[in-house]
Parts: sequence; C-alpha cells; structure tokens
Amino acid sequence: MFDKQENRIRFDYNNMTQDYIGDKGLSEKELRDAKPLAANAYTKVKDGAGKGWMGWTDLPFNQKEIVADVLETAKGIRRKFKNFVVLGIGGSALGPIAVFQALCHLHYNELPARKRKGPKFYVEDNVDPERMLALLDIIDVKETMFNVVTKSGATSETMSQYLVITELLKKELGEDYKNHVIATTSQSKGNLIKLAKQEGFKTYYIPDSVGGRFSELCPVGLLPAAVLGIDIKMMLKGAGDLYKRANSADPFKNAPLMAALLQYLAMDKGCNISVMMPYADSLKYMADWYCQLWGESLGKAVSLDGELVYAGQTPVKALGVTDQHSQIQLYTEGPFDKVITFIAVDNFRGEYIIPQGLPEYPDVNFLCNNDMGLLLNNERRATEYALTKAQRMNRTIYVPQVNAYTIGQLLMFFMLETAYCGALLNIDTFNQPGVEEGKKATFALFDRKGFEEKKAELNSAKAKSDRFIIKG
Amino acid sequence: MFDKQENRIRFDYNNMTQDYIGDKGLSEKELRDAKPLAANAYTKVKDGAGKGWMGWTDLPFNQKEIVADVLETAKGIRRKFKNFVVLGIGGSALGPIAVFQALCHLHYNELPARKRKGPKFYVEDNVDPERMLALLDIIDVKETMFNVVTKSGATSETMSQYLVITELLKKELGEDYKNHVIATTSQSKGNLIKLAKQEGFKTYYIPDSVGGRFSELCPVGLLPAAVLGIDIKMMLKGAGDLYKRANSADPFKNAPLMAALLQYLAMDKGCNISVMMPYADSLKYMADWYCQLWGESLGKAVSLDGELVYAGQTPVKALGVTDQHSQIQLYTEGPFDKVITFIAVDNFRGEYIIPQGLPEYPDVNFLCNNDMGLLLNNERRATEYALTKAQRMNRTIYVPQVNAYTIGQLLMFFMLETAYCGALLNIDTFNQPGVEEGKKATFALFDRKGFEEKKAELNSAKAKSDRFIIKG
Repeated sequence: MFDKQENRIRFDYNNMTQDYIGDKGLSEKELRDAKPLAANAYTKVKDGAGKGWMGWTDLPFNQKEIVADVLETAKGIRRKFKNFVVLGIGGSALGPIAVFQALCHLHYNELPARKRKGPKFYVEDNVDPERMLALLDIIDVKETMFNVVTKSGATSETMSQYLVITELLKKELGEDYKNHVIATTSQSKGNLIKLAKQEGFKTYYIPDSVGGRFSELCPVGLLPAAVLGIDIKMMLKGAGDLYKRANSADPFKNAPLMAALLQYLAMDKGCNISVMMPYADSLKYMADWYCQLWGESLGKAVSLDGELVYAGQTPVKALGVTDQHSQIQLYTEGPFDKVITFIAVDNFRGEYIIPQGLPEYPDVNFLCNNDMGLLLNNERRATEYALTKAQRMNRTIYVPQVNAYTIGQLLMFFMLETAYCGALLNIDTFNQPGVEEGKKATFALFDRKGFEEKKAELNSAKAKSDRFIIKG
Repeated sequence: MFDKQENRIRFDYNNMTQDYIGDKGLSEKELRDAKPLAANAYTKVKDGAGKGWMGWTDLPFNQKEIVADVLETAKGIRRKFKNFVVLGIGGSALGPIAVFQALCHLHYNELPARKRKGPKFYVEDNVDPERMLALLDIIDVKETMFNVVTKSGATSETMSQYLVITELLKKELGEDYKNHVIATTSQSKGNLIKLAKQEGFKTYYIPDSVGGRFSELCPVGLLPAAVLGIDIKMMLKGAGDLYKRANSADPFKNAPLMAALLQYLAMDKGCNISVMMPYADSLKYMADWYCQLWGESLGKAVSLDGELVYAGQTPVKALGVTDQHSQIQLYTEGPFDKVITFIAVDNFRGEYIIPQGLPEYPDVNFLCNNDMGLLLNNERRATEYALTKAQRMNRTIYVPQVNAYTIGQLLMFFMLETAYCGALLNIDTFNQPGVEEGKKATFALFDRKGFEEKKAELNSAKAKSDRFIIKG
C-alpha cells in the first residue's frame, strides 16, 4: 500500500525561468553559471552536517532509543489524559502546530473523545492574559499533561506559563503534580533541566547542536506528534530519505539546492519577498513554520566576513484558494518583488463531489459532478497560469498525499533549502543576534538586576513627541 | 462606564521620523512638503464618499432599519440553532473572522453551551474536500443555520458549498430546508438573489456601492456579529465616530490620512512591505482582514491615467509576542524594506498575575508578581525600542481596550487609510482586474461553455519541461 517511490515530493521550477516568464525570469545560462556557487554552498552544508549547529541533519538517523521512549510515553498519555498542552513559543510551537494541522482531523479538538482516540491538543505560544484565562475556562488541569519546551529554560514567555501552570497543578494535586509536567530542554544547562531534576519531571532533551527553528524532528516535535497518534517513525524516514537523496553538488540534480539557488538569484533581481502558498488547509501552518525558518535564518545584518549586508527575504504565508480572494490581485499586478512557492497536493485524503442542482445557472452548473479537490487544484493551476502569464516568478512543490512520510520530506526540504541559501548568502544561518536587544530591554523594563545600564539607556532615549500622536 | 473619550484609538508615528530613527526616517520637512498631496487625496476621498464604490463610508449612518432586522433575526438564531456557518470567501469571510476573534471568548466553540449563549461559529472560506468532510463530522446540518455570502452569486467556492449544503439540508429536512439558509447578496443582480427569491430564503443585501473587502460594516459582517452577541450598534458607532473625526485635509490632524501619507512616502524609500503586528491574540485576525484590504486595493498595474505603475505594498501579518520568536530577527537586521505597524492594547479584559515560585532563578524570578498583560506590553515596548534603535520604521496604534466601539474604529481607520493611500498612488482602489485571468482559466479547465478560446490558449501554452522538475 505504501510506496516510497510514489510518495516522493517533486520540485517544479519551470516558471522561474525565462523560457516560461520571459525577461522577468532566470535564464538557463544564469543557472548554469551559478553551478559553482551552488556547489560551494552544497559543500559547506555537507561539511558542516552534524557539527556545530547542524545536529538537525542527524536527527532522522540517530534517535532510535528516543523514538521508542517517546512512543511509550505517548501511549500512556493517550490513555490517561484528556488534554495535552504544549507550553512553548517560536520553534517550540510552530513545528508541533504545523504537523498537528497536517496529520490530524481538521476539527480534531471538537471531535467526540471516542473518535479522537487521544487527548485534545493545545499549543500556548503567547503570554496574552486573555488567552491564558480562556484556556483555563475549557481545560481541567487535573486531566491535563503539560509539555514545557524551552532549550535555554530562560524563555520568559514559557517560564511565565510554567509558573502559572505549576501553581495551579500543585494546588489541585499536591505532590502528584509532577506527573503532569514533561520538560523538553537542554541536557547540559539552563533552569528547566535543573528544575526537572529537582522536581522529578519526565524529561526529553534538545541536542545542543539543534536550534529552535530546526528542532521539529527532535523530541520538541516528536512527543506532541506521537501523543496525537502520528507515525513519527515514518516522518523521520521521510526526512531521512529526502536528506539522503539531496546528495549532489549539482543543483539540477538536488531539489533543495536548486530551490535555494533560485531564491538567491531572485533576491539579486529584487525579489525581497518569498510567498509560501499551500493549496490545502492541512498545510496551512507549514507556511507559518517555514516563515520562522526562512526569516530568522537568513535575516542577518552581517556576513561571515564581517561585512554589513542586511541580508534576508521576507517570508509571507498564504493559503490557496482562500488567499486568491485576498492577495492574488497584488501578486499579479503589483511590484515584481516576490517569488511564490505553491505547495500542491496530488491526492486529497477524501473527496466531496459537488452535487447537481442548478442546471439553469451556467456560471455555477459547470462545477457540478466534480470533486472539490479538483476545483481546488484547477484553481491552483489557473492561478499558476495567470501569474506565469503576468511574468511572476513561481514554483511548485508537489506532494503526492499529505502523510507522515511526505511531511517529513517537506520539513527536511525546507531546512536544507534554508541552510544552502544561508551558505550562498555567506551569513550565519543558525544564530539570531538581532533578538538580544529586545530581550535586554524587556529585562530593563522589569527592573531586573544586572540591567541597570540598559534601563538608564532606555530612560535617556528621546521621549515621544505629542506632535506625532494623533487621536483617531 | 463607557466613555467615548477614553475609548478613542491613538496613532503614534514618532518612530517613522528622522527625529527618532535618523536618516532612515522621514524628515518633518518631507512630511510638511507632502501636505498638498495629502490634502488632494483627502479631497478625492471626501468627494467620492457615498458614491461609486464608496458606499462603505455611509454604512455607519444609514442602516438603522437593517440593524433592527439583523438583531431580530440574530435573536431567533441564537435561540434555535446550535451552529452558525458562514459560507463565504475573501471579504465575506475575513471581516467576520476578525470580529469573532476580537470580541468573543478565545475558545468560544469549545465552551459549554450555557456559557456560550449562542451557536457555535464556523467560517468556511476554502473548498478543500478534507475540510468540508471535517466540518460535517462535527456539525449536524439539522441544527445549523448557513449564511451564504456572495455579492455576485457566482463565486465558485461559495456556490459549490451552497450546492453541497442545500443537498444535505433537503435530504434531512425537505421543504423546511429553506429556514436553514440566509442569503447575503446583491439586491439587483446575480444567481443568489434569484435563488433566494425562488426558494424563499431570508435575505440581506450587500449595497452595489460596497465591495467585498469594504463590506464588514454591512450585513456581511453585521449578521454574524449579532448572532455572536456582539454589540453591532456600538461597532457602527465606533466606525462612524472615527469617520466623522477624520475630517481634516491636514494630515497632522487626521490620523488615517497621516497613516496613508507615511506609507506612501515609505514606499518611495523602498519599503515595499507593510507588517501589521497586533500584540493581542484577540486582534490576530484583524491583521488578516487588513492584508486583503491593503493588498487587493493598492496592488495595481495601471494608474488612473493609464500608466503602467505596478503599484502596491505587500502586507504581512504578524502577532506579538509570538512572532518576536520568528520574525523580529529579520525585521531588526534584514533589509530596510518594511514599515511595521504595532497595535497595542492599553487594558486587557482580564489579568493573570504570574505567581512566585522560583526565587533562586533570577532569570525567571523577575517576572513574578506581574500581570501577563504587562509582560506582553513590556515586550512590545522593548521590541519597539530595539527596532527604533536599529533605525527601522515603525508606528503604533493604541487601542484603549478591545471592544465593539474600538473595533469599529479600527475597521474604519484602515479602510480610510487604504482609500487615502490609493488616492495618493493615483490608482483605482476599488477594482481587482488582476483576478479575472485566473477565474477565466479555471472556467476553461472545467470546459465551461463560452471559454473555448481560453481553453485553446491554455492548451497552446508551452508545456512544462521535465528538465526543470526535480524529485525530492
């Protein structure tokens, strides 16, 4: 039934080329001339794999025992708990949300328990008090397992939630509270590992060599997925198979390498925007996950040589067909400043034939007797055609069907594309120095000890002028 | 208790100016020199108000009877139905979703019925068969009211859903099915008004002078909001009050006019991206609604003088603090290509004090005894500070509290800003010619009669080359 050959994703970049979009496209010569650049990026990534911050390349291959442990733990959680809540933000949240949306029922939490066969699922990735109160209105903490996810153990948002939740749990459950918390964190350092040992929480480790936005294939993503009944072995296999096949320094033979090269060359032509537009509700949040990966990895002020480059391409999430009725006007007629990546699904996991009923209305009747999936895919093809005709750079990733194996491939595809593109841009793909200033300023605003200087700096900043504030 | 003065939104653009972000900002002289441009845009919008496609400016003032009818109908629906489902896409969906998220409980559908006091709420704005099947797994159509929303009555997605749903309803309910459908459509033309008359559906009208993306304040938005128990009179009052106060041709005295002028000048400096970043989960989908309004209105190839301009600024939705952990690295260090608009909430509708518990962990302990709302707002202030220090254009709309009155103001603020900006760009803000090509190509792919020529065109398009397709 499950055929790996038939389940390989395909990357189609015809509509990036001059052959298809004329002078707004890339010529085959440009692509061929860039082969040494691509080969160089390939070598850098290959040489770095598994080292430094590139532990994510090993994850499909080195987690046999972890997977067994996760599956065992997940089994118990599925039996015992009514709710499973992830407390995490950024990379600790976006992957789990994306995989949940892709591989679970699209109204999972609203299904009756017997159809769900596992706990309800929530990811709390903000500190809005209205949202925390809303969550507590609908869950009973006594019936809930909380997965606290922060590598550093110092993420303000997650640790605030930790304080809120553990206080409630202790009040309700006393000592037993610790059986309602699983920590996913660094093994070697930080508050959360200390707390986990002290309190006796079940704990999973985020390898030191895996950063937040590259962490979906480690326990950060594996535990929530397994709790949801997702086949995590198959997800890892999909990622691993794609990784192994991306083994050529020639971009014409390596899909994520070509994908990266195309973006690199498009940026050079003024495309500072990358639109990720899946045509499937199930893949909606893969776009959100991609936005962090692409934005945070490539948005860098300084190159590896110390030059000021202000690199980066702004990721934009869109959903087909929905956003045809919102963004396609702009994409078709606005500035030539974007690359649009469609994700197409060959076969949906269900069909719904549009019934007959309005023979006298020709502008509706043509739809009848067709599957909604065909409508979705024909609209995608039509949109692709219209954009191509308007000379807009676009490309399509075809997914045979949304399943654990293809989702694993997609995750690895985008991580590799990001790593290759970072190498092409000659920047550090894996750091995020630009977020430090805001963190320090937050500490100063709370008068945290040690940040008196930052506080003084904030206080000495030019006060806002009422001249530049208008009441609405 | 309700004080209009205290409930006025405020627009703060200090950090767009050279006084605050140095040479990457706009000088006060630039702003003053542009006053005649702004005055001209103001006059165009004022002169056009209520006419042509600008019926939306009248909606706060001319719907007394409609509001009474909507409230009466909503009362019956709240009593009789377990679910209320909007079938609509684009402008028919984004406004209702935004207002629902803003003004209802953040886990509304998961509340027990007695706490909800109204039906569950769904907006179906896609034609994914997996999603349709998922919806039908959790609702019983016999207990559901469907609000079919399409002005033209020819929107393929919505009319497909109409066919699906009416077939199911007829099978279950026979003749009574018509009491489960409310049509919101044009009074003067299209399939849906004909069908509504023929079948006897309760019907609301979308004025001819109101386009989809400007329709939230007509019955498109009013009926769903009223069904959800939202104070629609107050929402209209907020919109109307803001409209009346935006009565100066001087941008320094007219908040949405200044907002538009700033974007216009920023575009000229290379900012082709507009980020909308509310710091409140409740306002998350206001950003989605804004993205359609801004993108579809301003993304135009041709100016009113017939010149090729390829105008437009790509809207990006973000959510604070969540997206600090995804996009702020890029916003701080990437290209100088964006204007970031924060939406700040002065007072949340609930508080949650972060409890004490980790005195020995100084990098967590500083958070304790503070409201989560303060953490959210301090992180916003810190992010604003960091972006300003990095010379990134940013501005903030302050909302005293999220309620029907302030949401009405926000809706009108952005609609006016969009209209003013379209006038500044000298484009047609209210059409969307760029979506026609895709519609026609869809018809052709379905072999619809009358589109044989388009079909031939599609067939004659250059076939894709396998050279440019790589298996992953």
